Amino acid sequence: MPYRIGKYTLKMEHSPSIESYASVGSKKESEGPLAAYFDLLEPDGYFGEKTWEKAESRIQREAINRALAKGNLDPSDIDYVFAGDLLNQCISSSFGLRELGIPLFGLYGACSTMAESLSLAGILVDSGAAVHCAAVTSSHFCTAERQFRFPLEYAGQRTPTSQWTVTGGGAVIVGHGQKAPYIHAITTGTVEDYGIKDANNMGAAMAPAAASTICRYFQDTGTTPEEYDLILTGDLGYVGTGLLYELTERQGYAIHKNHRDCGLLIFDREKQPDIYAGGSGCGCAASVLCGYILPQIQRGELQKVLFIATGALLSTTSCQQGETIPGIAHLVSLAHTPLEPGDDRQCQCSCHRVGGRKGG
Amino acid sequence: MPYRIGKYTLKMEHSPSIESYASVGSKKESEGPLAAYFDLLEPDGYFGEKTWEKAESRIQREAINRALAKGNLDPSDIDYVFAGDLLNQCISSSFGLRELGIPLFGLYGACSTMAESLSLAGILVDSGAAVHCAAVTSSHFCTAERQFRFPLEYAGQRTPTSQWTVTGGGAVIVGHGQKAPYIHAITTGTVEDYGIKDANNMGAAMAPAAASTICRYFQDTGTTPEEYDLILTGDLGYVGTGLLYELTERQGYAIHKNHRDCGLLIFDREKQPDIYAGGSGCGCAASVLCGYILPQIQRGELQKVLFIATGALLSTTSCQQGETIPGIAHLVSLAHTPLEPGDDRQCQCSCHRVGGRKGG
Repeated sequence: MPYRIGKYTLKMEHSPSIESYASVGSKKESEGPLAAYFDLLEPDGYFGEKTWEKAESRIQREAINRALAKGNLDPSDIDYVFAGDLLNQCISSSFGLRELGIPLFGLYGACSTMAESLSLAGILVDSGAAVHCAAVTSSHFCTAERQFRFPLEYAGQRTPTSQWTVTGGGAVIVGHGQKAPYIHAITTGTVEDYGIKDANNMGAAMAPAAASTICRYFQDTGTTPEEYDLILTGDLGYVGTGLLYELTERQGYAIHKNHRDCGLLIFDREKQPDIYAGGSGCGCAASVLCGYILPQIQRGELQKVLFIATGALLSTTSCQQGETIPGIAHLVSLAHTPLEPGDDRQCQCSCHRVGGRKGG
Repeated sequence: MPYRIGKYTLKMEHSPSIESYASVGSKKESEGPLAAYFDLLEPDGYFGEKTWEKAESRIQREAINRALAKGNLDPSDIDYVFAGDLLNQCISSSFGLRELGIPLFGLYGACSTMAESLSLAGILVDSGAAVHCAAVTSSHFCTAERQFRFPLEYAGQRTPTSQWTVTGGGAVIVGHGQKAPYIHAITTGTVEDYGIKDANNMGAAMAPAAASTICRYFQDTGTTPEEYDLILTGDLGYVGTGLLYELTERQGYAIHKNHRDCGLLIFDREKQPDIYAGGSGCGCAASVLCGYILPQIQRGELQKVLFIATGALLSTTSCQQGETIPGIAHLVSLAHTPLEPGDDRQCQCSCHRVGGRKGG
């Protein structure tokens, strides 16, 4: 069963396995540098459906069905699905997963959902509460724009700090499969608010949360950035990434050498200038993780990866009421090999291996 | 650690304890039959804040802070908080819990959130992944009306099947406290859709989900309705309750003798006729559970209670696009005494005590 090290981090005792995964994208993603790595690239933004919202539900369904098929699994093999999205009342998830008949824990973590869902899937599998859990999320440029910003027909001018919502998603099946990638640990984020009010600058709103969760992971585990092949954030984009470096360095962790951001990997800011500061949306971290990163961990090209998805916890109502934009970030530590017994070192707050009892 | 019995039910090995809880209501709730049982009844619907949305965040903060105080706990004692609400992007939870600094798993389960959050809190405590977890949710008549229906100023006519969203909330602290009430088991719901399209008839949309989850619990555990002092649904109201009886009876379970619905307990339909078919909202199940039911289980006046919160998974967008209204229901089995070892009987699908491995 999972056990706590430090105040914010849970280690997995049996290193749950990511047995299968799939990623979905659309036209813009097919024009980006990661085009070769998607399981499905649908050029039609409607995915054959009548509305963009139904298209986004379709993305979730395609992602989980492809992950199930790749793992030779049936929906009835999955004990729980953890899923969420950006739409009001998370309709992409409820309608997208409606026909599958899998017990559903609906989540809302904004763009942190891929890490939030993967965290809970990992805990339930490691604790024996489930044999297989699925983690699924999605986003869609057109549903997000019209919900959060302007009707697309209005053709509003975008600001340089704005990010382009990925039309895509990803699904992961976690189980006891004894195959890479493995989940080693999770660090769950708290709500962080540095007072950003610009709804066109999500990266700045989320960077403090990412910095906080990353530094807490290093503190709890006693590890350093150099020990990881990759520190992968979800969708901080160009602006947020710069802020993340500054905030983590202030706490003594220089992460820039092996840090990448999904929002900067999925699009090419020079060849696709209309994406401005990078990609965003739940589907950004989800599709890059499931399409590009997990296969590299599986093959051993990446040995140890920290995956940190970040969410901006705003709504149009909270913005209109003059509220700031809090952020949250959840971290999942992934690796090519399972955690060896005795792999832990003393964490900095001397509350090592407390078996569910919190020390420190 | 939790172990699976049947296909949908998890039993808790060590019966996590509901160590503390608190409930919050407002004016309408103070005029109802349960007025004496709230920890806080604030007559001002703004709760001293400038907007209804900020008031709803305040409800969550008041609920968790009172639950912490009653349990002699500090926010830093809580490993995880599971929280959600009905508002777009769940802003009541993110803003309401922002200052507490507790790692947050944001949920969206519509009005099923109290049972969803309690389920996950129970699993994490029982598995040793957490020492204390909090489960919190809220709703507000004014935020819900203007988001889902009409501006309040419009003074729209309500239909007889409509329900009145409770302005209130509840918070529960789950831990290893060895005191009643105890969590015995959970049954997690799947998305159920019987094709209801009337957004003013939530009870009918949610009843099939409640029936499905309740019958699955009885099938998985091999128990019968008579063995429980109370079968408590969240907010089916008058219309949904009738449908629930019909649907469960079709599957061979007559639950009407000891069934109650929070939406019918919190208001008096004769003295408060403008509530029409009953109370609703995440805060309905949450405040009735935390204010009225948990104390009775704690004192032993109720020995065994099934708590089933139901959610209608719609948004204004999904309704405008002609979609049906799917429902989901999660069940938590509560009791005055902890589960004895060997307390299980053979479940009907012969997959008894499979310790994390799924049988039948």
